[in-house]
Formats: sequence, C-alpha cells, structure tokens
Amino acid sequence: MPKQGDSRELRTVWWEDGVVKLIDQTRLPGELVILECRDYREVAAAIKEMRLRGAPAIGVAAAYGIALGGNQWAQGSGDSLLGQVKQVAELMRATRPTAVNLFWAVERMLNRAHQVARGERDPGKIQKALLAEAERMAEEDVAVNQRLGRFGAALIKDGDSVLTHCNAGALATVDYGTALGVIRTAHEQGKRVHVYVDETRPYLQGARLTAWELKQLGIPATLITDSMAGHFIHLGRVNLVILGADRIAANGDFANKIGTYSLAVLAKENGIPFYSAAPTSSIDLAIPSGDHIVIEERDAWEVTHFKGIAIAPEGTRAANPAFDVTPNRYLTAIITEEGVIYPPFEEGLRKAVAQVQARRITPFTTSN
Amino acid sequence: MPKQGDSRELRTVWWEDGVVKLIDQTRLPGELVILECRDYREVAAAIKEMRLRGAPAIGVAAAYGIALGGNQWAQGSGDSLLGQVKQVAELMRATRPTAVNLFWAVERMLNRAHQVARGERDPGKIQKALLAEAERMAEEDVAVNQRLGRFGAALIKDGDSVLTHCNAGALATVDYGTALGVIRTAHEQGKRVHVYVDETRPYLQGARLTAWELKQLGIPATLITDSMAGHFIHLGRVNLVILGADRIAANGDFANKIGTYSLAVLAKENGIPFYSAAPTSSIDLAIPSGDHIVIEERDAWEVTHFKGIAIAPEGTRAANPAFDVTPNRYLTAIITEEGVIYPPFEEGLRKAVAQVQARRITPFTTSN
Repeated sequence: MPKQGDSRELRTVWWEDGVVKLIDQTRLPGELVILECRDYREVAAAIKEMRLRGAPAIGVAAAYGIALGGNQWAQGSGDSLLGQVKQVAELMRATRPTAVNLFWAVERMLNRAHQVARGERDPGKIQKALLAEAERMAEEDVAVNQRLGRFGAALIKDGDSVLTHCNAGALATVDYGTALGVIRTAHEQGKRVHVYVDETRPYLQGARLTAWELKQLGIPATLITDSMAGHFIHLGRVNLVILGADRIAANGDFANKIGTYSLAVLAKENGIPFYSAAPTSSIDLAIPSGDHIVIEERDAWEVTHFKGIAIAPEGTRAANPAFDVTPNRYLTAIITEEGVIYPPFEEGLRKAVAQVQARRITPFTTSN
Repeated sequence: MPKQGDSRELRTVWWEDGVVKLIDQTRLPGELVILECRDYREVAAAIKEMRLRGAPAIGVAAAYGIALGGNQWAQGSGDSLLGQVKQVAELMRATRPTAVNLFWAVERMLNRAHQVARGERDPGKIQKALLAEAERMAEEDVAVNQRLGRFGAALIKDGDSVLTHCNAGALATVDYGTALGVIRTAHEQGKRVHVYVDETRPYLQGARLTAWELKQLGIPATLITDSMAGHFIHLGRVNLVILGADRIAANGDFANKIGTYSLAVLAKENGIPFYSAAPTSSIDLAIPSGDHIVIEERDAWEVTHFKGIAIAPEGTRAANPAFDVTPNRYLTAIITEEGVIYPPFEEGLRKAVAQVQARRITPFTTSN
C-alpha cells in the first residue's frame, strides 16, 4: 500500500484504539482521507457507499465492524453481547450482495463468537476474541495475497503487457492486492511489465484507484476507457488479462466487476490468456454455477451523474449492475494462494478450499 | 431533429444569412446552444473541437465552411477565390483524419468550384454555386438518411431491443440520422423498439446526445456504461446491434467510434446480428481494407479529465484513439441508402457507389 506523507505504511482498513479506520476511496486520487468509524453502523455505511470496496477488503471491514459492535456492547452480559453480534452480522450481510468474502467473513466471526461463548461468559473477553479474529483475518489477507502474487507472477514474462479491470489492488484488500499483487510481484522480480488500466465506469476504480497504486509502485501504465480494451487486445498490444473475482462458483464461473465478461470474450477471440486472481475466501462451493450469483443493482444516479453533474438528459433511465458473471469456459486459470487452478475447475477449487480448511483447524479451535 | 423552444425545426448545421450555424454538441444535453460561424476557420475549429461530430455532419459542415470561405473572398477575382477555396479545403481536410465523408465532401466542393470556374469568372457567381452545392449536400443527406432508415427498419421486428453505440442520430448528420434513423423509422412504423444506449466514453455521445434524441422522439431507452453492453447481450436482452460508420473500406472493414470492435465480437459470440448503417459517402473504395484507415488519436486529457475535473492521478498517461476498425467478418450487413448490403461486401459496396454516381451525373454537370 502507498505510504502517507509521514511514511507510515497504510492499510485499506485497520483497527486503532477502539476505532475502525479506513481509506475513503471515494476521495482518491484527489485526497487521501482516513474515515474513522466509532460505531459499527458507520462501517456498514462505508461498505454500502463504496467508501471501501473490493471483495477481500469488505470481508475484513465487516469483521472489524463486528468487533466494533462487540466493543460497543462489551459492558453488558455475555448473552446480550452475542445477540448484538448477531444483529451487527445481519447488518453487515445486508450491505452488498455479490462478493462472497463478506458472507465468509461474517460467518467466520459468528463461529468465533459462538465458539468462545461456549467456555467464556465475560463479554470483555468475548469481544477481545472477536477483535483478535478480525486482526487475524487482516493479517491472513496480506499473507494470502503475497502467496497468490508469487504463484501468479510465474505466469507473467519479462516484457509482458497486462490488461486489468477495476481495482484488485492493495485498496481492494487489506494490503498488497490480488490481480495487482500478481503484477506487483512480477515487477518486484525485475520483470518489465506494462499495464493497460481500464478506467472502469461508472465508479472509475481503474482511473482513480488502480492508476494511483501503479503510480506509487512505479509500474508503467496506460489508462484507457473500457471501450478501448478490445481495440488494444485486437492490435496485439495486450499479452494477458488479469483481474479479480467477487465470487467464484464451484464450477469456476465467476462474478467480477461489470465489464469482465466482455474482456473474457475479447481475450478468447484474440487468443490471449485470461486469469482471475482471488483468495480462496472468494470461492463459494455452495453454488454449483454462476447462475446462482446475485448481481447487485446500484442506483442509476451513478451512471447518469458524475460528481453531481448530469451527463444525460433529466429523466434518463439507466441500468447499473455492479457485476457480471463470466462462464468458466473463458477462464485460462484461477490464481489463488493455494496455487494456479486450471480446468476442470471444480476439482481444483474443492482441493484448494479443503487445503485451507485443513490448515485453519488448529488456530481456529485452540487460539483465542 | 428535436425542435427548439419556438418549435422551429432545427438541423445540426445550416446556412443562414451568410453565417454557418450549428448546434454546439459539447453543451448538450444541458443547454441547446447555437454556434454562429462567420469565418471558415471557426467552422474548422468547431469540427476539430467536436462541437459538431458524426461523419455525415462533419462532411456537410466542411462543405458549408468552404462556401463560407468563398463568401469571405467573393470580392476579389475568380482566380483568387479559387486559390482561397483550395486553402480552405486543406484546412477542412486537416481537422479530423478518420471519417471519409469529410474528404468526400471537400472533394465534391473542389470539383464543383473547378467545374463552375471553367465557364464563369465572376467570383460572386462561383461562390453562389459553392453555396448551392453545400445546400444540395445538406438536402441529400436528409433524404439519404430517410431512405437508409426505411431499408434498415425492415431488419427490426416489433418488440426488438436494439443496442447502439455513440451517436449516429440526427446530430451526427444534417438531420434524421443513420443508425438512429433506422430505429426511428421502425418506431414511426409502429414497431415497439427498446434501445440500450452505450454511454460512449470518453466523450459521452451516447449519454449526452443519443439519450437526448431518443427522449425527444419518445423511444424507450436504457442508458448503460460501455462495459455493460456485453452483460446485457449475454443475458439475451439485446436482439441486434446497429451503429454507424466513419469509413468503410472496399472489403467491408469499417472504422467507427472506439468500442465498436468490442461490440462486434460480443454480438458474434452471442449470435445476434450486428449492423452498420451509413450513407454511401462513408464508403472508401480507394482502400482495400481497414488496415489503411488512419485512426485519430485525441488528447489524453479527454480521458483523464471530466468537465475539467481530474479523474486520474496527476501525470497519468492515457491513450485516446477516437475510433477502432472492425473486420468485415463480424458484420451481418451494411445498411445504406442504396439498400442492405450482405457479404461478400466488396461487390455490394461497389455496386451501391456506382448507382449513386450514375444518378448524380445529371445534377452534377448541368445545374449551378
């Protein structure tokens, strides 16, 4: 993650003295503003308003939000705290419907709460365990992205030109990033990499966030409008496409930022590899295919207006699906912290999730 | 074309009392501002700055610009006027490189000037002939679009949902439009048509201009970002794609607004028809394929800024090709005023151009 003026390493979201702090991504790249949430409802609002976005980041933010809710109620009884934690969990779940990391993180926090409450009635200690779990998830996220980055970087050759969409960078995670983490690792390995950055309308995560991160990292980049991607792929200027995922179904179909499906088709038509990079927490084995993924429909206003200025005639009807689903047949491979998964995806995805669960059993049941 | 407050029928560009008037499309949809050009250099600047755009519209605007230049020099001798007309023609040619209608219109005006000057030395009369030619081109453009619209409307069924990109409407022509003229004709024939309007970054011709025209015409429309087109095509919500063309090579490869190639690939992948609607003046038989089309590269600032507000970090490098080239194999058919042309395109395109030239021989050599 880029550093602040005082050289302090920033994360996308963190806990500090009973406050959940996060970079307000709606203010980037113009200003680096830290939002301070003293109430769990502020965390939920920040996720809903996309002040913080990116599947892994909203998962960890929701976990911190639950820890914050626990903190607000730690004066009561253990039972009232547990009830409150469930309410906070419901609020977090209702913020955004598509990324599965959110539900995964909430579930993990609830499991932890119940687990601790079985042997411990002191609300202060339960809260402490919740915060510790959230902190563990944040640490794991960074470590996971770094592992994922090393696996993915092996797919990038010296001199490659990579196209990415939206922001799957440090700002979409706690730190380091997924798709951008892969590019960053390749860059750190000394490979010359050039990045085509889709601006990613309507929210401009590419122009505002990815271009900002790449500038901080010193990785050469060219910003393009989403409509230009096909042109540059067709001209042979792009060697591979790497982007994130908000939810990966058991068969490898995946939801990601709107526009991903188009890039998948363009990559296939032009014979270049198309990769999704995501932690195993983005894998949802409970759904057999992408048909079961709920696509978030956001306010039409985000399409018809820019910074409060109307770009379309008054009364214009607009659609605003935030994500689309790409069928697995377009995917060359899925890059995870457990390795690069090739088709047929179902087997590889199940194996990766099983490996992670097997490793987690120890800290999950014995630590507090 | 939509009407002004006083119900006067507007055109995109017209001649009035020695002044070339045009709708300043950079101000739409917020304001309907008429730009008045008293100097041919203002017409050239308006084309360059995209205050007026669209292949047919810039062709006719350039013709009016040449007539205006002639008017400014009609006090001198016939020879000095001819020399001046050539200079004005060069200035017009240098405004934008991709649309062939511009070169076609300039050539036609120069031919007319030389033709008249063979038998007439009075600069006032030469100027009159030039203005008459520009007016004829404007009238022809409207008539051509109406014919084209009738041919194209036969391809639209009642209940169809059409996707279009950029603006190929009344504002891209003198009036009526090409791709949007086809949709308009189908609508006027009583067919229920719904239009998905790509916003068309970076210049937002879809959001600003096409949405405005469709609203005036009462045709139901949904505005989407360019990145959403693939999603809606994949969901089966779009039955066909119709858009314009800025230059069609002899083999049917064609240049059109950046993003067209992506839509062509998406239409093919999903098995829906993909049409380009353009007058025969957009056909350039002098080039065998799209490889010979010069793609205009515009200022990066159009991508990195919106209404003067930076959307990317300072110093971000951006690409801004205004057009792309779509290979003929993606085209279902080309809709022209001479009929709908199907593959193999070369034969049909040559025949259409020959038909138009044969008809034009009479007025071209005998009228003044």
